[in-house]
Amino acid sequence: MKHLLAIEQVSRAEIDAILDRAESFAEVGRRDIKKVPTLRGRTVVSLFYEASTRTSSSFELAAKRLSADLVSIKAAGSSVDKGESLKDTVATLSAYDPAAIVIRHPYAGAAQLVAEWSDAAVVNAGDGKHEHPSQALLDLFTLRRQLGSLDGKRIWIVGDVLHSRVARSNLIAFQEMGAKVTLCGPPALIPRGIEELGCAVSYSLDGLDEADVVYALRLQKERMKESFVPSIREYAGHFQIDSRRLGTRQLLMHPGPVNRGVELSGEVIDSPHSLIAEQVASGLVVRMAILYELLAIGGESPAPAEEDPGERPTPMGQPA
Amino acid sequence: MKHLLAIEQVSRAEIDAILDRAESFAEVGRRDIKKVPTLRGRTVVSLFYEASTRTSSSFELAAKRLSADLVSIKAAGSSVDKGESLKDTVATLSAYDPAAIVIRHPYAGAAQLVAEWSDAAVVNAGDGKHEHPSQALLDLFTLRRQLGSLDGKRIWIVGDVLHSRVARSNLIAFQEMGAKVTLCGPPALIPRGIEELGCAVSYSLDGLDEADVVYALRLQKERMKESFVPSIREYAGHFQIDSRRLGTRQLLMHPGPVNRGVELSGEVIDSPHSLIAEQVASGLVVRMAILYELLAIGGESPAPAEEDPGERPTPMGQPA
Amino acid sequence: MKHLLAIEQVSRAEIDAILDRAESFAEVGRRDIKKVPTLRGRTVVSLFYEASTRTSSSFELAAKRLSADLVSIKAAGSSVDKGESLKDTVATLSAYDPAAIVIRHPYAGAAQLVAEWSDAAVVNAGDGKHEHPSQALLDLFTLRRQLGSLDGKRIWIVGDVLHSRVARSNLIAFQEMGAKVTLCGPPALIPRGIEELGCAVSYSLDGLDEADVVYALRLQKERMKESFVPSIREYAGHFQIDSRRLGTRQLLMHPGPVNRGVELSGEVIDSPHSLIAEQVASGLVVRMAILYELLAIGGESPAPAEEDPGERPTPMGQPA
Repeated sequence: MKHLLAIEQVSRAEIDAILDRAESFAEVGRRDIKKVPTLRGRTVVSLFYEASTRTSSSFELAAKRLSADLVSIKAAGSSVDKGESLKDTVATLSAYDPAAIVIRHPYAGAAQLVAEWSDAAVVNAGDGKHEHPSQALLDLFTLRRQLGSLDGKRIWIVGDVLHSRVARSNLIAFQEMGAKVTLCGPPALIPRGIEELGCAVSYSLDGLDEADVVYALRLQKERMKESFVPSIREYAGHFQIDSRRLGTRQLLMHPGPVNRGVELSGEVIDSPHSLIAEQVASGLVVRMAILYELLAIGGESPAPAEEDPGERPTPMGQPA
Repeated sequence: MKHLLAIEQVSRAEIDAILDRAESFAEVGRRDIKKVPTLRGRTVVSLFYEASTRTSSSFELAAKRLSADLVSIKAAGSSVDKGESLKDTVATLSAYDPAAIVIRHPYAGAAQLVAEWSDAAVVNAGDGKHEHPSQALLDLFTLRRQLGSLDGKRIWIVGDVLHSRVARSNLIAFQEMGAKVTLCGPPALIPRGIEELGCAVSYSLDGLDEADVVYALRLQKERMKESFVPSIREYAGHFQIDSRRLGTRQLLMHPGPVNRGVELSGEVIDSPHSLIAEQVASGLVVRMAILYELLAIGGESPAPAEEDPGERPTPMGQPA
Repeated sequence: MKHLLAIEQVSRAEIDAILDRAESFAEVGRRDIKKVPTLRGRTVVSLFYEASTRTSSSFELAAKRLSADLVSIKAAGSSVDKGESLKDTVATLSAYDPAAIVIRHPYAGAAQLVAEWSDAAVVNAGDGKHEHPSQALLDLFTLRRQLGSLDGKRIWIVGDVLHSRVARSNLIAFQEMGAKVTLCGPPALIPRGIEELGCAVSYSLDGLDEADVVYALRLQKERMKESFVPSIREYAGHFQIDSRRLGTRQLLMHPGPVNRGVELSGEVIDSPHSLIAEQVASGLVVRMAILYELLAIGGESPAPAEEDPGERPTPMGQPA
């Protein structure tokens, strides 16, 4: 793997390798010193053209825990505002010889273009309505820890499927790992003909009780203005996941940030069903694993070992 | 101490311990390498819902000098803008297993809530009109260096006491350390009944010559619109600290940023009375001490010693 | 050299020393670990009052590759918004005892004032229409690598010379190194009497074929509103550098960000004439060299050697 542009291009074996690696980074995260020197002296560029807290902070902390030097560019307040083209921005940043560029951009295909323009490994952190592959990988990691294999498991993805890159990447990833996926939402928010991808479609929550996992999507409030949904209240009435609709053994996921009281009721977010906090924790270790797989030299020991003792700090700087 | 939420909850002995620790970090600050490895591989989250230069940069540099990995979230341009609740944001960030969360928020009590929601040590960097305990501690540190003990010293806090979390935290801290405090300002800006906390109140600067320390507060210009003061000019006429009103041995403090020509005249800011630069320098070492006290394992050597020689850089990367 | 405020104040010998140092940092940039511990434990403040991607990211990455701790303040969202004066902001930041302050500010002379107010080494990263000395140095470095000496070389600087601090700094620098400079643009955008600085002036591109180097400037679109140019289209018709106007051996430079289709046609940006990516790469190593020259102790080995082997990471944190 040179880049991570779309989950569509990642094989089951490659997915397993990333998830195994993430498991070893989870072990690092339980240490006092949650850091490995793998990418020391290498540069990771984080280039976000859309607002983000969790994805950008997750990738940036992943890079720091791998000891990389980070260049973080948010579109607002940068030359991007002066109308520089994406191509020229990438040329600029490539001149720093970064090991990786992590990019989020409102246009589908942007990450692919960056990969053509730069020698760096490119990670797609969301491109328009196209893909968000690291989200799919962290969701797979979260589920593998809960369920072991996904083979034959039933997953319902509920909400605004039409506008969601998460829905697209996760549908592909869940099916790749053997799950049976149902997409659920109002007709205006389900792409026509999507069944051709091998999934089922439901225009109501009837039948949700068959699901092992309920994956709720964020409802962008802008959609109401665009008349995709008649009102938030009516949408929530038909599609909100609440404790009445959720069976005892069903797992609940959401890519965040949640609209409390819209796609999810407050009580299910904080219930034992919810894997939302686990998803975020998975995000950090899976993104460390992605950067590791793309950047570290092959053939190395798969398990992160303790750091060189000479590197270990002592409180207040005492000589070791 | 697990958290630093309010100076009200900190005992005199705990205050002394933090100030002693800060003294040892001041010594680190005089070295060429102003850094200790205490928090290496641990994560500090800085979460600011209000604009800030000095408090946020001070906490962030403190974390870096302790070698922590920093995740810095400013409300603008983050999911916070997408309407995510504080609770969900904290759940997200807690999934990174941070050692500490430093939070500034416009609502009184926000830091307390974060402490309930997260396993991290929480530092209140200002919550609404409630408290700003690290400011009180850095002011105590600044004064201890100038005056030794505060016992029996007279401190006037002048200005917009009503809206000031600094006034509230400092009143408590100064009294805890034995000082006699007078709150001074126009009646509309002094909370009614505040004398019950044991301080005096003055509605004019008459009697200011008894003060050992004059602590001026920032006048938020918005207050004029809300009719708390009739005009900036009239406010300054009655309450501005200028060289005419300041006696030779009186010390001047201000939490910054200063409105030059409003609460302070330009010449006193730059005069030998002023401890304003010392306050900022104290802020850095006191915040290192706060993070140290909350995060470092107890029972360790109190004085930061030289770092492991193997860690010391040589110019241009020469082998040591 | 204590500060880098204006290229005007830098001698030819000092320029050569910085460029030689930058060459040694370019060598560091070709290593796997692109980092030296030179400034470990020292603090660099980056204070940008104007939007910037390439200059701020270049200085910040330079500081990180030298292992400094970085405090990065962008004007928006900081106390600067609360109307704090530059003087007070500098006093605040100086209290952290930074080794260097890198400042960009809209007023000519701002960097000079900061140097008077602070003990830190001050680097002018652009002050109004006055100077941008690190840009001049990185352009000299780029050209030295292409041409060896600049002695007797002909350089045309084309575009909005009047409003350009880059034009001003580069005119001085190119002449200092022995080049013959022609300033070219519409009369409204060339300062009157500028010939007194020893350069030629041309109000059209006629004669451009004599140039060894064509240095195009960015046309600020705001200029059109201010009636300096009648229209972007007309400006581009007369002054755009395109493949028709560029001879085979001519080199093309631009400080970025480029307005594609205004001062440069798309095809020349991506042509072998263009040194634009080289300029950005030079920016990083030249800024490392500037910080090194200002901050590192004199008399040290000029060539960055390999780092202490004890510092070198192993993949996944394996003991060395």
